Amino acid sequence: MSYSVSIIGAGNVAWHLAPALEKAGHRVREIYNRSLRHAEQLATRLYDADILDVPDFSRSRSTVFVVAVADDAATLLLESLQIPENAIICHTSGTQPLEVLSRYPNAGVFYPLQTFSKSRPLDVSRVPFCLEASNDDTEEVLVEIAQSLSQTVYLMSSQERKVMHVGAVFACNFTNHLLALAKQILDAENLEFDLLKPLIEETFRKALTAESPALVQTGPASRGDARLIDAHVTYLAQAPHLQRIYKLLSDSILQQQNRKG
Amino acid sequence: MSYSVSIIGAGNVAWHLAPALEKAGHRVREIYNRSLRHAEQLATRLYDADILDVPDFSRSRSTVFVVAVADDAATLLLESLQIPENAIICHTSGTQPLEVLSRYPNAGVFYPLQTFSKSRPLDVSRVPFCLEASNDDTEEVLVEIAQSLSQTVYLMSSQERKVMHVGAVFACNFTNHLLALAKQILDAENLEFDLLKPLIEETFRKALTAESPALVQTGPASRGDARLIDAHVTYLAQAPHLQRIYKLLSDSILQQQNRKG
Repeated sequence: MSYSVSIIGAGNVAWHLAPALEKAGHRVREIYNRSLRHAEQLATRLYDADILDVPDFSRSRSTVFVVAVADDAATLLLESLQIPENAIICHTSGTQPLEVLSRYPNAGVFYPLQTFSKSRPLDVSRVPFCLEASNDDTEEVLVEIAQSLSQTVYLMSSQERKVMHVGAVFACNFTNHLLALAKQILDAENLEFDLLKPLIEETFRKALTAESPALVQTGPASRGDARLIDAHVTYLAQAPHLQRIYKLLSDSILQQQNRKG
Repeated sequence: MSYSVSIIGAGNVAWHLAPALEKAGHRVREIYNRSLRHAEQLATRLYDADILDVPDFSRSRSTVFVVAVADDAATLLLESLQIPENAIICHTSGTQPLEVLSRYPNAGVFYPLQTFSKSRPLDVSRVPFCLEASNDDTEEVLVEIAQSLSQTVYLMSSQERKVMHVGAVFACNFTNHLLALAKQILDAENLEFDLLKPLIEETFRKALTAESPALVQTGPASRGDARLIDAHVTYLAQAPHLQRIYKLLSDSILQQQNRKG
């Protein structure tokens, strides 16, 4: 079934989600954004969406309202947002519980588990959607819309979504930071970070195709090579902050190996 | 120019390097390995290599001897290894200095900066080779051989190789471990690690195509979202070891953002 949808927000998520909804046969009726310019830019990617300059959708004919704004902007937005009585409203945040929408009778979470940038094309059909709803009818509609967009749709409680997010911080935010630290270490000796890229790519291919990343762990700590670990720790004495990270993560790998052994 | 080469070792590096040498037009004359069975398996991948059961190459007609054994096996091996006087000898270790070969007049390091598994095919032409030699003639030969194998050949001192290796531990070993920890966090709540894979893949694509991984850092610490960090730290109180890692890496990201700001 095809739904009429309005989008609140014109950031990275809305940028990819709104055109994907149209491509899947839904109608995007309106866009609201604090900055009109961003709403206008998003509208150029859409068939015939109206732009609202206040978040008053009380006369909208949409049945689903998608709140796709940054967490810190959501509270203020929700105070002034007007939607038709009994409309479905959902947010796209990985971190906000369903309860932030508790004053609405038909509320849900419509969380695309992916990192979005306006500048990078993205295949929405490969994005897992994590859904939650305050009642069965709302759940049914959100599942139907998500399945029209993506091959991977999960029902997930707010608590599960929180745990998923903690996992994502380790798997994505922290790994990215370790790549940044590696570049910093190489930069300090005028070594090119590009040299490491084939190795990084292969490491990730291996980790994501293995039954479990723990099973393909390599490196000094994984081999229990105390002499090499000492040599690296000594080298990093000039950068105590990197040394602490090196020690803590090496200890963690050693513990993991001991549990396996 | 084509060289005659003998390979000491039949592990993961030899497994990929020996056939690549033949493909590049060199001749692999002999293989030695502690375990004959592994040497025989490697020989099946080669044109016409002899198998030695003691590391006595004193009558070999090879001009280059490649020591591709694990670091902890190298010391013992080098005590018994016999090669023709004035032959070139090199090792493939990222961690051993050139000096471990100091008793040879023509010594070098021939380090392929990649992770090797027998079970995974690998395009050697995309592997960066980091070279070092005890004299110019040896360097010339090793550079020539490396360039026949790969598009990326670097001269690198033992000290630079060590720093490169420290960087690789952060960028590869530690990132793999963080993926393992993320899986552990999800497993504890019966959430599928597969759900995170599209996000992980996109994170790495972004990090490796950006000018620098630091410029595409995302997540709670990067946004300075103290409330969310607190919520995650509280959740991880049940796993103090994960909590310590979460805190240290979040602090490190915050410091990085402050330096940029």
